Amino acid sequence: MNVEWIAVDWGTSHLRAWAMQGERVIAQAASQDGMSRTAGGDFQAALLALIEDWLPGKPVDVIACGMVGARQGWVEAPYSAVPSEPIPVVPFRVPNTDPRIRAFVVPGLKQNSPPDVMRGEETQISGFLSAHQNWDGVICLPGTHTKWAQISAGEVVSFRTFMTGEMFDLLCGQSVLRHSIDDGWDEASFIDAVADILSKPEQLAARLFGLRAADLLHGQNKNIAHASLSGFLIGAELAASRPYWLGQQLAVIGSESLTKAYATALQQQGALVETVDATATTLAGLAQARTLTRQTA
Amino acid sequence: MNVEWIAVDWGTSHLRAWAMQGERVIAQAASQDGMSRTAGGDFQAALLALIEDWLPGKPVDVIACGMVGARQGWVEAPYSAVPSEPIPVVPFRVPNTDPRIRAFVVPGLKQNSPPDVMRGEETQISGFLSAHQNWDGVICLPGTHTKWAQISAGEVVSFRTFMTGEMFDLLCGQSVLRHSIDDGWDEASFIDAVADILSKPEQLAARLFGLRAADLLHGQNKNIAHASLSGFLIGAELAASRPYWLGQQLAVIGSESLTKAYATALQQQGALVETVDATATTLAGLAQARTLTRQTA
Repeated sequence: MNVEWIAVDWGTSHLRAWAMQGERVIAQAASQDGMSRTAGGDFQAALLALIEDWLPGKPVDVIACGMVGARQGWVEAPYSAVPSEPIPVVPFRVPNTDPRIRAFVVPGLKQNSPPDVMRGEETQISGFLSAHQNWDGVICLPGTHTKWAQISAGEVVSFRTFMTGEMFDLLCGQSVLRHSIDDGWDEASFIDAVADILSKPEQLAARLFGLRAADLLHGQNKNIAHASLSGFLIGAELAASRPYWLGQQLAVIGSESLTKAYATALQQQGALVETVDATATTLAGLAQARTLTRQTA
Repeated sequence: MNVEWIAVDWGTSHLRAWAMQGERVIAQAASQDGMSRTAGGDFQAALLALIEDWLPGKPVDVIACGMVGARQGWVEAPYSAVPSEPIPVVPFRVPNTDPRIRAFVVPGLKQNSPPDVMRGEETQISGFLSAHQNWDGVICLPGTHTKWAQISAGEVVSFRTFMTGEMFDLLCGQSVLRHSIDDGWDEASFIDAVADILSKPEQLAARLFGLRAADLLHGQNKNIAHASLSGFLIGAELAASRPYWLGQQLAVIGSESLTKAYATALQQQGALVETVDATATTLAGLAQARTLTRQTA
């Protein structure tokens, strides 16, 4: 196996690595050693456990993005302030690594007012832009903390984070709603819920308990409640992010199921949406970051 | 100790009992044997562990309200449909009890459209109305699942539940915000957050992550984040419940800290608010319910 470099996506709850030849993946591995498990511990050991078999005879570049660059991370990679190119500076070199690797961490972006931060999404944005020259518009990156980023002339002009994914997980898994929800899906209920909350965004907290009451009183199907909960939360986010997406060129970058849900919701509002796979953009962005380390090496 | 009857408030997370002479409390006890711990188990044993020392030589009435009347409870006390008096029918007798007690459970209220339910709050409303003859207006009962109830001619005409308290607990204790919040309070930040969300209720999910970012970027005080989170969630509820409280006679029934927060938020919007202690109204409501059992005994 002729590994040229190693790409790493290291978030709060996951660690994923790819053995690369140029922009081609030749092997991949993943573990649960995300930041929430590794913080304060041995980052290098967690990474080597995943990639050790790939290491060639000579030192190899490892390019990582995500929460691994936070203050409690492997090396702190201080935020760049927007407006900024998504990967604006040379990634930070991790000091004192195992001699078989030269490790770098991509810095995140910060916005002073309103205060906001991202780590990881800047790499996906960079990867997306590398394949879309002169692209102006808005990129939505749904996830635990969904980001909306306004792009102009190759720079992130502004961005905004919504806790939609984390609220969905907490409400689904730990609130009283967990008794009234299953893993099923009902597309019509999702679309109705999005439209309902977009027209009355202040009703969110009332609509949520309504899902429980509809189960107790009317035996509402649990897959309807699941899709409705998703629709209420995404609809509330679209109501808040309307200045970002209304009349804009749009791309949604994320997992297949999440991008599909967001694209459906946005298309119902008449928006034109391109959906893009998150892993592909992450790898393209890390490849972009690697060119910066090589220019200055 | 001359115990005439025993009042019981049995909710999801708590069990509280009072030994009563008429409307006077002569002893009280509490445990963590709420419904979430007792469901499927031995309700009577959990209760007797608390009240056994109070039992006189002859059978004594035990009047209970709350989730104990749910399908998974001690005895199912089917909901009464609104519009309805808050305690409209004879409380349900629990069959086959220990011969030293005659136990009754107060039924809750249901609303078919929009679907909604309450168990326990109807007793507080009944207790409040027993001390406020001919009172028309709106009662807010803040808690895990906050209720807003419209009262006219002694009946609950309609009501609405908001998951504000449960969302606050989940976000404070289990979301990424837990790193940026402490137990302190900042009244000005609370008031600002209420006003901010009342004017832009759709911004909730963005404002929430803003509390995390303001900590990371600007080292914002954690007591400001705590009060702001409370303000954002209560403000979002007030935006949704505006048709309930705008221009209405208002009473807020709950714990001291919660009624104070709601009263402050409502007063900032120009509303006139009476605050009432929850325990006193619960006991008055259970005493009302007891008169119904005695009329038919």
